[in-house]
Amino acid sequence: MGDPRERTRTIATVLPDMETRIMTLILNNEEITALLSMEDCLAQLDEAYRELGEGRAISRTRSDIYGPTHDNGRYVFKTMDGMVPSFEAAAVRLNSDVIQWGAGPGGIRKDKQRTAPGNKFVGLIMLFSTRNGEPLAIMPDGVIQRLRVACANALGAKYMAPKNASIYALIGSGWQASAQAVAMSLVRPLKEIRIFSPTPAKRERLAAELKEQLGIDVHAVDDARTAVRGAHIVGAATNSLTPVVDVDWLDPNVHVTCVKELELDDRILERSAQVVVHTRLGRPANYIIGKGEEPIYDHDPKEGLSEDLQKIRGARKSRVDLAKRPDLGELVSGHVQPPPHGGMTCFVNVMGLGIQFAALGALAHSKAKASGVGREIPTEWFLEDEHP
Amino acid sequence: MGDPRERTRTIATVLPDMETRIMTLILNNEEITALLSMEDCLAQLDEAYRELGEGRAISRTRSDIYGPTHDNGRYVFKTMDGMVPSFEAAAVRLNSDVIQWGAGPGGIRKDKQRTAPGNKFVGLIMLFSTRNGEPLAIMPDGVIQRLRVACANALGAKYMAPKNASIYALIGSGWQASAQAVAMSLVRPLKEIRIFSPTPAKRERLAAELKEQLGIDVHAVDDARTAVRGAHIVGAATNSLTPVVDVDWLDPNVHVTCVKELELDDRILERSAQVVVHTRLGRPANYIIGKGEEPIYDHDPKEGLSEDLQKIRGARKSRVDLAKRPDLGELVSGHVQPPPHGGMTCFVNVMGLGIQFAALGALAHSKAKASGVGREIPTEWFLEDEHP
Repeated sequence: MGDPRERTRTIATVLPDMETRIMTLILNNEEITALLSMEDCLAQLDEAYRELGEGRAISRTRSDIYGPTHDNGRYVFKTMDGMVPSFEAAAVRLNSDVIQWGAGPGGIRKDKQRTAPGNKFVGLIMLFSTRNGEPLAIMPDGVIQRLRVACANALGAKYMAPKNASIYALIGSGWQASAQAVAMSLVRPLKEIRIFSPTPAKRERLAAELKEQLGIDVHAVDDARTAVRGAHIVGAATNSLTPVVDVDWLDPNVHVTCVKELELDDRILERSAQVVVHTRLGRPANYIIGKGEEPIYDHDPKEGLSEDLQKIRGARKSRVDLAKRPDLGELVSGHVQPPPHGGMTCFVNVMGLGIQFAALGALAHSKAKASGVGREIPTEWFLEDEHP
Repeated sequence: MGDPRERTRTIATVLPDMETRIMTLILNNEEITALLSMEDCLAQLDEAYRELGEGRAISRTRSDIYGPTHDNGRYVFKTMDGMVPSFEAAAVRLNSDVIQWGAGPGGIRKDKQRTAPGNKFVGLIMLFSTRNGEPLAIMPDGVIQRLRVACANALGAKYMAPKNASIYALIGSGWQASAQAVAMSLVRPLKEIRIFSPTPAKRERLAAELKEQLGIDVHAVDDARTAVRGAHIVGAATNSLTPVVDVDWLDPNVHVTCVKELELDDRILERSAQVVVHTRLGRPANYIIGKGEEPIYDHDPKEGLSEDLQKIRGARKSRVDLAKRPDLGELVSGHVQPPPHGGMTCFVNVMGLGIQFAALGALAHSKAKASGVGREIPTEWFLEDEHP
């Protein structure tokens, strides 16, 4: 691919009239990784959630459209929008995926397929200015997706976990897990991180990586119970649709986080002195070709698996009403406080929000502009004279 | 700007490895105008609505997010999605607009401002493949927006208006009106078109244009009543939020269309033997910063105008429940028939659908590919290795 700045200059040279034009930035994940530090993302999202909590930012509930594609898969077109006027930013985040369902080691799982040319995924953030409407940037969502999930969980801990929390138990060793640990280390004085996931080689590799990166005691353990015993913060970051931690294993003042509601034992929610959800927007709005709009959490075209999911959901639905809990915006903006006398707290990171992509997209855009990173194409290619 | 194909070739020359790459097409409105004939759009949308009616295509309800911007305006970020697997197409259509409200000759109106660089608007269609997820094209929505409104109304008439309808009364002379007349002339053997709008010069100019283009008798008239008397098809294509045609002026077997629900006297809906709506998806989902999600038709930040709108809505709401009428997909696919013994019919084009943009976007893309029109950028700029 070569140096992307080199390429941009080449285009500008052969098309000299572009040099003075207003340009729309196109970034890739490598550039975004270099541009966005976890610290900066935490600060940017802290402000975004404060704006949300104060009623000055808003997201449009994620929608997923399911339709047929080749083979046994489903094509899913997913969009969510967000607006943070204090950053002069609005964004749509979209995913254009071929998905297949199957049985994994931890139960039923759905997997995005690498069907785009070159065995790639398609996930994009389109960023616009709330000042004049102009398109500012187009960028992939993969790196930002990981950062925003990690930061949301770290912000939950920043405002709810015990101030001196030093032991962090991480359940999971996948692509989300390492970012979770890095973000968490920025909001609490961690001294020890214990990692459990079903595959020994994976948990040991992640432990070695994090030890190197964070310079603290990070080690893999053989079971979840050992990981969470006495831990001050427990973070689940798995693909599991069944609970990965039992409430009876936990310290009474622990702060628990997750990246998927179904990872958590419902009794954790019931025993917590304070439960905060990422958003009360609820489930995504699912539009399923042949079925219309269905308010279900997840869609499985195979009857059997679908019934399993229905059972899981049905059995758990009655216990906890997350739609009535405070959200992260209310926590960050101080409208909700952690329990004054301690006790278990829990942050449930149920669903993404458009403001996360507007906020981090705006941060990547401003940093890229300042440092001259990224490809550019003339913004006028995306503008029109015609009244739409 | 120069010839866009020339520019594309220039980029490909300096970046030779791009030549064999998969490319994403960028089209402009001039190219789209040349690529899309009204006949082809009618045929494409006929199939799209048949797919919709058969449960093989789907749209995600439009959402509008309102936030602050400079001056007295509001920034509005509007998105809608659609999927038509028979065309292997999914699309999001988005608008990034600064809007102001004010009093117009026909009542309250809201106007998009030309705030983007070069005094432009920002409305885009992003097209994706349901086969492998890849981005196929990015194009402006202005020309397609006009075509899809005209075609939807013409399809309503194709399946409901009297077969030999020859007199068409057009109320309105704005940017939608001429397309309405052209599309209507393709579905019925029109011999006479009468045009009324409040400004004589505008209605006369449109009449002259259409007479030239269609080669039939087209003339402007001095009032709406004269226009609609004895007409077989009456089409309202205005910005008005109050009725522009009285039911007592109309022929008992007339077919009536509109581009906005509020243009029509409710008694037209009540007296019609068959009313078909464009979609039962209802109002857009409005997300208003500072207010949350509000299920209102239109938003006006100025209290006084807002009250007026509430009054209009309140007074009309009780009479007709459009959410219980058949939709255009059901009409086109034959699940709903026109009234067997004649009588007034009405098509209410209440809100746009994502499938319109997926269908016409796919048509523009395939025609542009076939004829080598448009700019191209490497699709890999929009792909990612990272699991999003």
